[in-house]
Parts: sequence; C-alpha cells; structure tokens
Amino acid sequence: MKPMGPIPPAFAGRQVLTIAGHDAEYWIARAGDTPLFVYDLALIAARVAEVRAALPDRIDLHYAIKANPLPALLAAISPLVDGLDVASGGELAKALEVKDAAAISFAGPGKRDDELEAAIVAGATLNLESEGEGRRALAIGHRLGIAPRVAVRVNPDFELRGSGMRMGGRASPFGVDADRAAILVRDLIANGADWHGFHIYTGSQALDAEAIAEMQAATLALADRLSDEAGAVPPLVNLGGGFGIPYFPGDTPVDLPAVGTALGEALTSTRLASGPTRFAIELGRYLVGEAGVYLTRVVDVKQSQGETFVVVDGGLHHQLAASGNFGTVVRRNYPVANAAKLGADPTGTVSVVGSLCTPLDRLADRVSFPDTAVGDVVAIFLAGAYGATASPSAFLGHPAARELLIMPQT
Amino acid sequence: MKPMGPIPPAFAGRQVLTIAGHDAEYWIARAGDTPLFVYDLALIAARVAEVRAALPDRIDLHYAIKANPLPALLAAISPLVDGLDVASGGELAKALEVKDAAAISFAGPGKRDDELEAAIVAGATLNLESEGEGRRALAIGHRLGIAPRVAVRVNPDFELRGSGMRMGGRASPFGVDADRAAILVRDLIANGADWHGFHIYTGSQALDAEAIAEMQAATLALADRLSDEAGAVPPLVNLGGGFGIPYFPGDTPVDLPAVGTALGEALTSTRLASGPTRFAIELGRYLVGEAGVYLTRVVDVKQSQGETFVVVDGGLHHQLAASGNFGTVVRRNYPVANAAKLGADPTGTVSVVGSLCTPLDRLADRVSFPDTAVGDVVAIFLAGAYGATASPSAFLGHPAARELLIMPQT
Repeated sequence: MKPMGPIPPAFAGRQVLTIAGHDAEYWIARAGDTPLFVYDLALIAARVAEVRAALPDRIDLHYAIKANPLPALLAAISPLVDGLDVASGGELAKALEVKDAAAISFAGPGKRDDELEAAIVAGATLNLESEGEGRRALAIGHRLGIAPRVAVRVNPDFELRGSGMRMGGRASPFGVDADRAAILVRDLIANGADWHGFHIYTGSQALDAEAIAEMQAATLALADRLSDEAGAVPPLVNLGGGFGIPYFPGDTPVDLPAVGTALGEALTSTRLASGPTRFAIELGRYLVGEAGVYLTRVVDVKQSQGETFVVVDGGLHHQLAASGNFGTVVRRNYPVANAAKLGADPTGTVSVVGSLCTPLDRLADRVSFPDTAVGDVVAIFLAGAYGATASPSAFLGHPAARELLIMPQT
Repeated sequence: MKPMGPIPPAFAGRQVLTIAGHDAEYWIARAGDTPLFVYDLALIAARVAEVRAALPDRIDLHYAIKANPLPALLAAISPLVDGLDVASGGELAKALEVKDAAAISFAGPGKRDDELEAAIVAGATLNLESEGEGRRALAIGHRLGIAPRVAVRVNPDFELRGSGMRMGGRASPFGVDADRAAILVRDLIANGADWHGFHIYTGSQALDAEAIAEMQAATLALADRLSDEAGAVPPLVNLGGGFGIPYFPGDTPVDLPAVGTALGEALTSTRLASGPTRFAIELGRYLVGEAGVYLTRVVDVKQSQGETFVVVDGGLHHQLAASGNFGTVVRRNYPVANAAKLGADPTGTVSVVGSLCTPLDRLADRVSFPDTAVGDVVAIFLAGAYGATASPSAFLGHPAARELLIMPQT
C-alpha cells in the first residue's frame, strides 16, 4: 500500500463528497457526463480573500492564467484580482476579453513577432526575456508608432529553496541575468520604450513559508539594487509567486499569515517602498488548484495477479500530472477517493488506472480504498490547476473532459 | 556537453536537411508556418515493405493508429497493411473511414458501453480486457441482436525483456491473466459471441532482436497452450508489436531480418500454424516514427550565466516526449539539428528550449551545435509517432502545430 496526498480541507471529513453542497452525481448530471472537471468559484474567491487579508495592502494580486484559462473562470476571477499574467498570444487574447490591457502582463521566453505586436497594439506589458526580445519589441513599436510598454524579466542570482520548479540561481531561458538587467533598462528607456518595471520569478510550488519569505526579501533587495543601477524608479515590481499547494503525502499548506507578515517586514526595509512603486504577487495554482475536482466514472474493476485495478473513463489525457508524467521524477499519489464513500473505511488496496491503452495511465498506485464497483465515481482532487489544458487531450482519440464552473448562488 | 540520439539514416549525412528532396524552408512554405510536423509517406511505405520482406508470409501486418492518427496518413497507410488497431471509440471512427470493420480491432482497458456498442454495430473485433468487459459486450450484443466479434486480450506470464514499456509478466490493467484466458474463451463461445482469437501484447519500444524473438516464441507457445485449454482454434493470434526505434545515444536499430528469421522458425514449432489460424504483428511507432520531423523556428538566442539557449517557437506542447516528460525517468536527448547546417561542424554547446514559460520545456539539453541565429529552423527527429497527439497541445494557449504528409510524386 502506498500513501496518497491530503484531500483539501474543503472536501475532507465528510461521508460523501460534496462540492458546493451537492454530490458528484448532481454535478455530473448538470454537466451531462464524465469525465468532468468541477471548479468551485466560492473556494477560489475565498482563497483570493485569504491572500488579500494576509498580504500587505501595498501588494497587488495577479492571476497567472496558465493555471486555468477556462473562459468562465477568467471572467469570474478577473474582478477579484489586480492583474492577469499571460504566457502566449492566445492567453493574451483571452485576458483582453475580461481585463484592461494596462493590467495584463505577458511573459514567455519564445514570443514571436506577431505576439509582441499584439501586446504592443493592445497596450499590455511585455515582460522582456532577453536583450534580443527588447530589440524586436522596439522595432515593432517603431514601425507601429507606439512606445511599447515593457518590463524586464530578471533571472535572479538566487533561487527559491524547496520549490517544485526552480527558475533562478542558475543559467536559465527565462529573463535577463541580474548583472545585465539594469543595462537593458537604460537601453530601453533611451530608445523610447514605456518602461514598466521588473518581473522577478524564482520558482513555483514551494510550501515552506520561510523559504518564500527569504526569496521575497531577496527579490525586494534585488529590485532596490537594480533600480539604483538603472537610475530609474520602476512603476511595478512583480515579485513572482511560487506558493504551492499540498499534492503529496507529507505536504503541508503554506503558512500564509507568516508569508504576509514577513513580506510586510521586508517592505519596510525596501527603499523603493517609500516611493510610488507598486508591488505585485502573481499566483496561479495557489488560487485555483484546490478548488477543482476531477470526476471520472468506474468502467471496470478487475483482478490481475492478486492486484485490483479500478479502471475509469478518464485518464492522463485530462490529468497528466496526476499520472506522475509531468514535472515529477518520482511518481507519488495525488489524493483520490470514491466520491460516494469519502468517509468509508478502506477494505483493500487498489490501483486507479485510466482508459488509455498505456501503462503510463495510472492515476493512483496501490492506495487504500473502500469497496468500489462499476458505475461508481472516483474523485481526483487538486484538479483546478494544470489539469485539462496541461494534458495531452488528443491522445488516443478519447473525448475531451467537460469543465463546469460552479458560481456561488446569489 | 551531453550526447543526443542518432539522426535517422534517411536524413543523416547531408550538409542540409532534406525531406523528400526538398529543404525545410520549402516544406514550411508549403504548410504556411512553423511549428510543423512533416511526415514522409515514402519512408513509411519503405518501412512497411521492409517489414513485409523480413516477416514470414504467414504474418499479417497491422498498424496501431495511436502512434499517428492523422487522417491523411491513415488513408495512405491503410492499403499498405492488413489491419488497423484502435484504442478508443474516436480512433475506431477514424479507422472505419479507411478500412473494413473486419480488419479493425479495438483494445483498451476502459471501454465505455457506447464504445463497445459502436464496435459491435460496425463489426470490428473487440479485444476484451476483462471478464467484466466480456459480460458487457455480450449484453450489448444481445440487446442489439448481433453476435459481438471478440478476441481475448491476454496478460501473459512473461515479459518483453528490455522494452521501454512492459505490459506482461506482472499484475496489469491490460488483458486477462493467462491462467484465466481459456475459461473466458469457453464462456464467450458458449454465450454466442463470435470469438476471433487472442491478443497478446507484452511491451513496446524494444530494440534487441533476440528479446523480441524470445517474446514472440513464448507468445506463440502461449497461444498453442491457451487454444488447447479452450478447446477452440483461434481465427487470429495477434502477437503484439514492441519493435522500437533508436531515440537516444547508444540506441541501435532492431535487426529486422533476425526477428523475421526467428519468427519463421518459431512458427514451425507452433501447432496452430498448421491449421487455419492467421497471425498478426501490430506496429505503430516502428512504421511511422522515423518518417517524421518536427520543424520549429528560432525566435531568440540568448546567453545566461555562460550557457547559450536557442529558443524556438515550438515546444513540449507539441513534442512532449522529446522534453523527457512522458514515460522516461531520466531525461535524454532526442536527435536535433539546425536544419540548414546539418553537416556543419559544431561551434559550441547550446540548449534548445521551447516557447513555453516552464523549465520543463527543454527540447535538447546542452548539445553540440553549429552557429545558430534567430530565424534558423531546428529539426527534431523521430517525430512521426507520439508527437502532435501525445502532447498537451492546449498548454499555455499557443497555436497547434501544423502537420503535413508528403505524398510520393506519382
């Protein structure tokens, strides 16, 4: 038997899984069929409020839409946050439907000319990833007669300890090395760009509040230093995000009040904080990840060589990360449950496998489970971020998952 | 510097990459833009002919369409092979457009009732994965008044040594354990099913001819034994596939003539071979994988902390496996090249990264490369199988890759 990650508090501790007050079958009937992603907007709004309450007032909150770009979710979250961060021309177009361009910033190491042009025309902020990208943005702006609004993404000389994905402290395709950033800022300003500040992103999926606080303090100090070197005050410093959620056995939630308190203290020793500079945190997974549940129906329960396999109608084509094939070296179990028997005592050990004809499609490996039969619904938690759009949905020609955003009843 | 896998012989050894006699820019102009998958049908046809020549006449050749289900490719390969193997209702529908149902078989551990019904109505063969699936198929057939055409997929009690993905010799979601297969066959026949034989699949992506030959001989012996136990002669024994292609440093091609010779010898000691039973090999990746090249244009070339990054307009959203995030534990380099400088001497070490804003999007890690500039085209080889449809194409909202099948000029 292998352990699984913790079921999020909003869903744990009940006999039967309920989402926004209704059971899984209710939402499946509403959506029409499984496999289904259900996102509870009330949980997202509560998480946003929690972050707002914990962080200093001085800190803007941005949503990184890559975590979940469902249009209905974007429309709902947009009024709750100060900005949207996008990573492609496609995401930019989606963001522009729900937010002012002035509140949208665009990062990504391989922006094509047509993407740069779309951002410049719209007036969104380009987080420049290199000197070359800066030259291309300036040339396009010159051709169009528009001063491009640009920030400089910095590859910091430190990293986020304990983060799932480190993006600083090493050679990186993201941003300009810290020792060249100020030169680029001077150059951009000299060439007529509308310089909007710095974007400093060090990693993601960190759970340790102390590590996050340390990174934020270092980021603020770096912003002070770079502003001095550039001889210019940044309108905005985007401190990145990196707040993780507990996916795996032993993971514990970020101590958000501790992060907020430490950030408040760090701001007091940040020289830029005494001026007009705004600061922002950009969060994706942390805002939406725990609010989503992936529901998939049991198609078969079978025995093989003494093991039990629960075969479901979903799979890694919708939930690649849960299968352990995306960004993790060692496969560990996401939290999963029989939706109708959330509180039932386990009666055996099963593996939950998807419908794909590949041994990679294993959603839970030898977990304790209650009696489960064909027709039951299995819930895979932590499905609000990097699920439907971060999975190979066309693989093996199965139908796309449905997605349902539950709006709070008003 | 890290090594990369071998460039396929059809493309290696030239100064400039050519595909079917034209350079990369020619095909990009034809398709309209990068990122682009180009598949050379002449190479696929040559590979099919090579397999036909090496295998005994008694062996049918099936194409497993999951490897590459592009409709134009399916239409072109269908007349070259004896059967199509599918893994979902979606793939079944595609296969039925180009092949008789009698030559189509459908495997997959999580077939839904609507998929079973579609196959039964069409007359395709269902490779049953469990006793429960057998009962469901019989019930649907009864309701429709059609005897379902079924084979029994067997989880063999041996494995394919050295295969990239083992699917035998252990507890498995695929097929019925060998010691229960004959009972299921008797039961299916007794209940009026049109029993069509056995499907015995042990693994994939094996390069060692001796291991493949050993597995095939063991599979034939198992088919003999199961037929005796069932007291019935199978119309068809599908021996699976498992032939790999060289992706990584040190990989060498399968010795196809050796496999064919050994299979011929194994058939002479197979009792079923003296009767009416047909035998089939099912290949996907082996037929199409090496015939495809993924072409992606350089958007930026940048330095960071002494390393050089070549940033391209494609990425893991089209070629997930090349990024090392699909089914491999240790990341190794696929063969990649600057398309216009295939034969040029390397001048440095670069990493080729995609346009996605995640550190996972690395297509080649610290490889020797010639001078490469913005606008150049990078070719990633071995892109004919498990590329476009096995990647998270919606991730970060970038455009889908284009796909172009080059038909031989007639």
